[in-house]
Order: sequence, then C-alpha cells, then structure tokens
Amino acid sequence: MAKITPRSQDFSQWYLDVIREADMADYAPVRGCIVVKPYGWSLYENMRDLLDKRFKDTGHVNAAFPMFIPISFLQKEAKHVEGFSPELAVVTIGGGETLEEPLVVRPTSETIIGHMYAQWVKSYRDLPVLINLWNSVVRWEKRTKPFLRTMEFYWQEGHTAHATHEESWAEVMQMLDVYHRHGVEDCAMPTIKGRKSINERFAGAINTTSIEAMMGDKRALQAATSHDLGQNFAKAFEIKYLDRDNTEKYCWTTSWGLSWRFMGALIMMHGDDQGLRLPPKVAPIQAVIVPIFKNDAEKSSVMAVCDRLCQTLKAAGIRVKLDDREETPGFKFNDWEMRGVPARIEVGPKDVANNTVGLARRDIPGKAGKSFVPQDGLTERLRALFDEIHLSLYQQAAAFQRANIHEVNTYDELKEATKDGWALAPILDDPAVDAQLKEELQVTNRNFPFDQPEGEWACVVTGKPVHERALVGKAY
Amino acid sequence: MAKITPRSQDFSQWYLDVIREADMADYAPVRGCIVVKPYGWSLYENMRDLLDKRFKDTGHVNAAFPMFIPISFLQKEAKHVEGFSPELAVVTIGGGETLEEPLVVRPTSETIIGHMYAQWVKSYRDLPVLINLWNSVVRWEKRTKPFLRTMEFYWQEGHTAHATHEESWAEVMQMLDVYHRHGVEDCAMPTIKGRKSINERFAGAINTTSIEAMMGDKRALQAATSHDLGQNFAKAFEIKYLDRDNTEKYCWTTSWGLSWRFMGALIMMHGDDQGLRLPPKVAPIQAVIVPIFKNDAEKSSVMAVCDRLCQTLKAAGIRVKLDDREETPGFKFNDWEMRGVPARIEVGPKDVANNTVGLARRDIPGKAGKSFVPQDGLTERLRALFDEIHLSLYQQAAAFQRANIHEVNTYDELKEATKDGWALAPILDDPAVDAQLKEELQVTNRNFPFDQPEGEWACVVTGKPVHERALVGKAY
Repeated sequence: MAKITPRSQDFSQWYLDVIREADMADYAPVRGCIVVKPYGWSLYENMRDLLDKRFKDTGHVNAAFPMFIPISFLQKEAKHVEGFSPELAVVTIGGGETLEEPLVVRPTSETIIGHMYAQWVKSYRDLPVLINLWNSVVRWEKRTKPFLRTMEFYWQEGHTAHATHEESWAEVMQMLDVYHRHGVEDCAMPTIKGRKSINERFAGAINTTSIEAMMGDKRALQAATSHDLGQNFAKAFEIKYLDRDNTEKYCWTTSWGLSWRFMGALIMMHGDDQGLRLPPKVAPIQAVIVPIFKNDAEKSSVMAVCDRLCQTLKAAGIRVKLDDREETPGFKFNDWEMRGVPARIEVGPKDVANNTVGLARRDIPGKAGKSFVPQDGLTERLRALFDEIHLSLYQQAAAFQRANIHEVNTYDELKEATKDGWALAPILDDPAVDAQLKEELQVTNRNFPFDQPEGEWACVVTGKPVHERALVGKAY
Repeated sequence: MAKITPRSQDFSQWYLDVIREADMADYAPVRGCIVVKPYGWSLYENMRDLLDKRFKDTGHVNAAFPMFIPISFLQKEAKHVEGFSPELAVVTIGGGETLEEPLVVRPTSETIIGHMYAQWVKSYRDLPVLINLWNSVVRWEKRTKPFLRTMEFYWQEGHTAHATHEESWAEVMQMLDVYHRHGVEDCAMPTIKGRKSINERFAGAINTTSIEAMMGDKRALQAATSHDLGQNFAKAFEIKYLDRDNTEKYCWTTSWGLSWRFMGALIMMHGDDQGLRLPPKVAPIQAVIVPIFKNDAEKSSVMAVCDRLCQTLKAAGIRVKLDDREETPGFKFNDWEMRGVPARIEVGPKDVANNTVGLARRDIPGKAGKSFVPQDGLTERLRALFDEIHLSLYQQAAAFQRANIHEVNTYDELKEATKDGWALAPILDDPAVDAQLKEELQVTNRNFPFDQPEGEWACVVTGKPVHERALVGKAY
C-alpha cells in the first residue's frame, strides 16, 4: 500500500510524501534547490506547452534574456531594489577574477527588459512589444518545499510595453484571464481573479492582480500574478517612443508570471489519500494498460491484446503506457494511482474472451470507478472519459471552494470563518489593516475579487466605509 | 537594399550584420551575454522541438537540475576541475550573507548528475538511466560572438548511466547519430562524424566524439559532441548498482550536448549575401504572403485573396505570415530575404484575375527562383517546394564541403590544403602533434572520421605509422 500520510492527519507531510512516492522531485545538494525528476518534469512541460499556446494565441512571442544582471540595474527603480535586495544571489568572481561590478542572478527580469526595450522602442510603430520568457530565477530562500518554496524556480515572465495606459491595463487583465482559463480549462482548477491590496503589490507596480486557488487544506495559494507597472520602469529605464503627434512619450509597461507553484497547486487541489489525481490534459501518462494473467498461456493471449490496444491508442495521440513490469497487478494499480494516471485499462483472460477491458477512472477511487467496456471504440470512449474526469475534478474542487468561503460582516465572524476556510469580508485597503490581520489572526488579504456585488459596508477591522470585499485566509 | 557586408569581403562581419539585420539577437549589458530576440528564439525553439522529439523517440526523458553546484563537487573528478576551473562564475553572497561554501553556476552538470544518480541507482533494474536537460550554462568568456562565443549559452545536455561499457558506448554512438540526423534531416546540414583526438577530449571523458560542419568561409565548427565517460564519474560519485550476480558494480556513464552554436552553424552554412537562408523545417516563418497593388480598388481584391490563402495555409499547419505593413513590396522582398523565409507568395491584380500567385524560393535568389502557379492546390505545392528547398540547401552545402576537403599525404600538402579548406591527413593521435599544428599552421585536428578507408600511412607531422586520417582545418 501507499506509504503516504493521510491528508487529514498532516496535509503538509502528505504533500511531501506524494512528491516522493509519485517520483516528482528530489532534494538537491544545495539548500533551497530541488531536482525535478522525469515524471514531474513531464507534467511541467505539458502545462508549459498548453500555456505557451495561449500566449501565442494572444499575439505574444518568446525570447531569451541573460540570467546575469548588473547590480546597478536593480537600483534604478527604488521600490524594486528595496523589494528584491534581501533575496539576491550575487556573483562576485568570474573566470578566476573578482568582478568590478558584481552580477546578480535574475530574481525577475524587469530591469534588464527595461534596458533593452529602451533601445528597441523608438516609435509608436514599434508598439506594443509583447514578449514572454520561459526561464528560471533565483530568490534566496533557505527553507525548501518542492515547487512551493525553492531558491531557484522555473516560471514564465511576460513583459509588454504599450503606448497608453488603457492598452497596458487591458493587457494586464487579458493575461490574468489567460492564467484563469489555463487553470479551468487545462488543469481543472477553479481560481478567483482579483486585485491585490496595496501592501501585496509587486515591488515597482502601481497595481497587481492575482488568481487565488483553494488547496485541499483550505489554505490559499496565489497561483499567478499580472502587474500594471504604470510608467515606473519606463521612466527608470527611459523607454520612450515618438508618437504620431511627433512628441516623445513614456511607455506603459506590464509584467505577468506563473511559476511551477502552479504544479504544487495542482497537486494540493486534486490529490487524495491514494496520491496524485491528474487532469487528463496535463497528465504525463493519460492511460495505463495493466495485463492480468496467471500462466504463460494466458500471458501470451493477454499481452497480444495489450500490445494491440497500446498501438491503437498511441496512434490516436493518447499518452498511453503498457506496464509490462514483473510486478503483481495490485502493486501496479497502487503505483499508477499514486502517480495520478487518469485512466487504467485492465486486460485479463476473460477480457480476451469477451473482447472487453476493465476501465477504471482515478477521479472516483475503488470499485465505483470501474466498468467493463468493449475493446472496439476504446479510443473514443477514453476521449469522452477524459472530458468527464476533467469536469469531475473541476466540479469537486469548485464545490469544495464554494463550501469553504464564508461571507462575513464582523471581525468575530472573520476570525471564526478563517479558522477553517476563507472569509469574504469588507476590508479597507490599507497596509496597517493587512498587518493587523497577519499579526492577530495569521491570515492575509488574498485579493479583492473582481466579481463581487456592489455596495457599501463597514470594514471589519477599522469600521470605515468600504466598497469592496476581500478574500481573507491562511495562505501558502 | 540590405545593409550587410558581402561574405567574400569579410565573413565575420557578414555574420554579425546578418544577426543584426535579421533581428536574431542583440548584445546584453553584461559582457559575453546576448539577448535572443523573438525571431532568433523562434528558430531555436523549432530546432529544439525537433531534436527533443528525436531524444524521446530513442527512449530519453527530460528532467530539470539546479543551476547551482557546490564548488567541492567539481573537485571530485580531477581532470574535470582542471578543465573547468578557469571558466567558472562563482556566487559568494546569498541573501545578503557571505556563503560558507561558494556555489558555481553550472558550466555543465556531470557532477551534480553524478551526485543524484548515486542516490537513484541501486540495482540493475534501475538501469539504464536516460535523462536529458534543456537549460543554459555559464563558462566565463569576455569575447562575444552571438551563438558562437557567449558566456551564458543555451543547450541540452544528456546524461546516461548503464550497466556495461558495451551499452554506454552504443549510447555514445547512437546520440552522435541523432545529432547527425538532426543536422541532415531537420537543418539540411551535412556533418562529419568522428572521434576527437586525445588532446581535444572533454575534461573527464575517456573518449569524445563529434560532428564537424564546414562553414561558408571553409572554417570548421564542432556542431555537437557525445562523450564516453567510462567509469570516471561513477567512481568519483559512487554511482554503483547491485548486479544480477549479487555483486556491486560501478556504472558506465555518457554525456552529450548540442548548443545554440548549432544555430550559428546553420546561419554560416546556408546564408548568402542577401542574408539568411533557412531550411523550411526549422524556419520560424515558412512562407510570407506579400500583397501588391497600386490603388484602393486593387488593394481590396488583392487583400481578399491574400487573406483567404493565409487562412488556408495556416489551417494546413504551414507557418505563414501575411505582410500587410505599409511598406513597398520591394522593401518587403528584401526584408524577408534577409530573414531567410524559404518561400514568398506574391499576389497582384493579375494574380487575382488569373487565379495565380507569384511563388519565389529563397534558396535560388532572383528571377530564376520565381514562377507563377495556380492558387488551387497551393498547400500541396508549397509542401513539395519545402522538400525541394531542403534538399537543395543540403546539396549545395554538401557539394561545397566535398569540394573543399583535400586528401593529403605530406606536411607541405597539408599546409597548402588548409590555407583554403580542410585536409584529410594521416595524423598521429598525440597532444604534441596537435600543439605543433596549432602553433605552426593555426589549424586544429577536428576529428578522426569514423567513415574512412583502412590502411597504414606515415603521419605527416611525425612520420610515424598511423591507421587513421584526421580532418584538419581552421576552426571556430
């Protein structure tokens, strides 16, 4: 049986157990760093490719920028350097010599992007610039929790420049929606779009938006952010363009990022006590075929059917694996359940005789999720099943999220609600309020959801009149 | 007209001009580093995806390893540290504090791979391990030549572990062949497979193999390498397995890499005085549609045809671009020739009337490469044309290579031949010989081709009897 801690007993340990037993990642010899093993990296690649397609469909192109940034670049934007200075990894020696100016390993690329865009953008004809980077960045971190808290992490960072604030704000909102749809449509993950409080803004942004996701332990996870940088970086790096009216103007820029935390969120949202449950669109293996036989005669006829089915499914573009290891079927069932493979196809002697297979779905564990179906038309049946599994995972997560968000109107109600869930409460957008919530209740203002009723209420902390409710909860 | 230096006048300057005018890359603010712009990066991504598919088809899987390696790791393999020490970028400060043990930014990952494989491999059942990484590495370098010589460069590095030397050597040769086929079949690049001289081996390898390519200036470029690491790293990092006979044995490991130099090679092999010439399989844009009209009435009917053709080709999976910029057709022709787009589709009022298009192929410049063809069946015609262009680029490069390799048997002949081409000469595999050639003639032993006649000859340098001929030439 699976060697993992039950979720109800210790969610954090369950997460680490699943990462280990599903062969997703391992600890690297440098504190804060992880190695992503092939099964984990294949999941990342699938998520990356689907998100990348969404970027390209919205007119973005990829490029590659260097990992090293002169330390002086960060100092050009006051809030930016203040935010990132404590987290930097600094190269001071290169080629055996001490460097005149140390280089930082990028914690994010706004500054070097600003430097280059200033050279590339001359005229309104050069706008908008819509570039995305897939890379890894470094922010010093001694604690390690695979995908959630690592010193080096893989992500994408989009950086765009526009002629007007109207355009750049539309980009900020468009990319937040791209992230939201990637969650819903590719990863079966419901998330809530909103704007971050002043206190939680990206260092150098005039506005930060986020999507927030509820994990299986009811904690919040910021799954992606999209920033309105106003003209802050344009002014710090002189990104200017000659407009149609022949005057020089500063650009309006944005940045937006989604990291491998999203993979951590996927695990913590869908996983159960048997291990991972992966949405079919991103699963490294969508279906596994397990042969069942008692002797050589059975083996030969069973394997012939397994081979044929495997070929057929592969040719149809389904990511299928035939598990021909010398292990018991029971061992294999547990192993693939742990790894979250959406569908399992069992083929035994009776199936050979009846032209059937046993088809088990991972989203409904145990016998309830199993049925016998004809071998003919298995491809189409699997495709339909994948759609069903995607929807079922989404609905389970969405129902869980809905059931654990509580609309509250007083501080006591908020305190009660956030003990085991999120509160949706009238909150003043003031760093002092954020600080008080953090100190007194160990909760944070996740975001002010864009989708909320109009009205005026008294802030549950200050009593002052406010027009927005915030999501408040414990968070990763 | 194109603002580039003719190849015959100054090949090196031509290369830099093409990189700039085709919008491939730019210099970064840190010496030795470059920014790869969207057009260049799209080419890289296409090459990467095709090579990645070849890795997966030969049973390899991707993973991600950290960029930081404890400096002590490099010291575990004596020759490895000797080879890489002078080139390291060293992080000495992290999170504001001086580190107890400095971290190097990986120059290559054999050491951290060794550390992890030692933990992952326990039994013969765990072998072989067949992992590839796509990442960037850093080797200190002050000179910058985009893609050819950069401090940080993108590449892939494969790392495998096997039970026997027979298996690991087969892997070395298999991956060299994968690189060779990627060159021939994806990039229209002929290359020559062989083993490197003792002097040119990878630091820590017992044998290094390479593919060598001839550039347009007849210099050699090492396009990829595949290394037999013997048991050197297995012993340094204790990568051992329990064999079927119940005894513990050291693994045999390999590593193999191909970097964005390959993109530099592609440019320098196929480019001409009009700019890039890209093989269709990797070209970011395979066909460009240029509308030609004199007035609004013409524009409307021409654009309708262009839009329809663009939709049709796109739906068929062809990477097509409709150039609707407000520039003259002549400007556009030059621009897309510079960028090496394999096929150009011109649509004018006569084409609208005749249901034709003008179809120009980039591999044959000027009027000779242009014809008028029906709009109907354009997709199939383009697909056939892409195959033709691929073959034509390959044949031009292969003929050029053949014409410039001279079989020689004396030192004087070698000296003469390498003034303007490569020599294929009997050479003793001795570092002193390599050094003499380098010093006296500024040429290097590229490799001992695997495909060569059997025989015994006198080494042209030492006069000693040898059984192999080496390719010798000036190199990048």
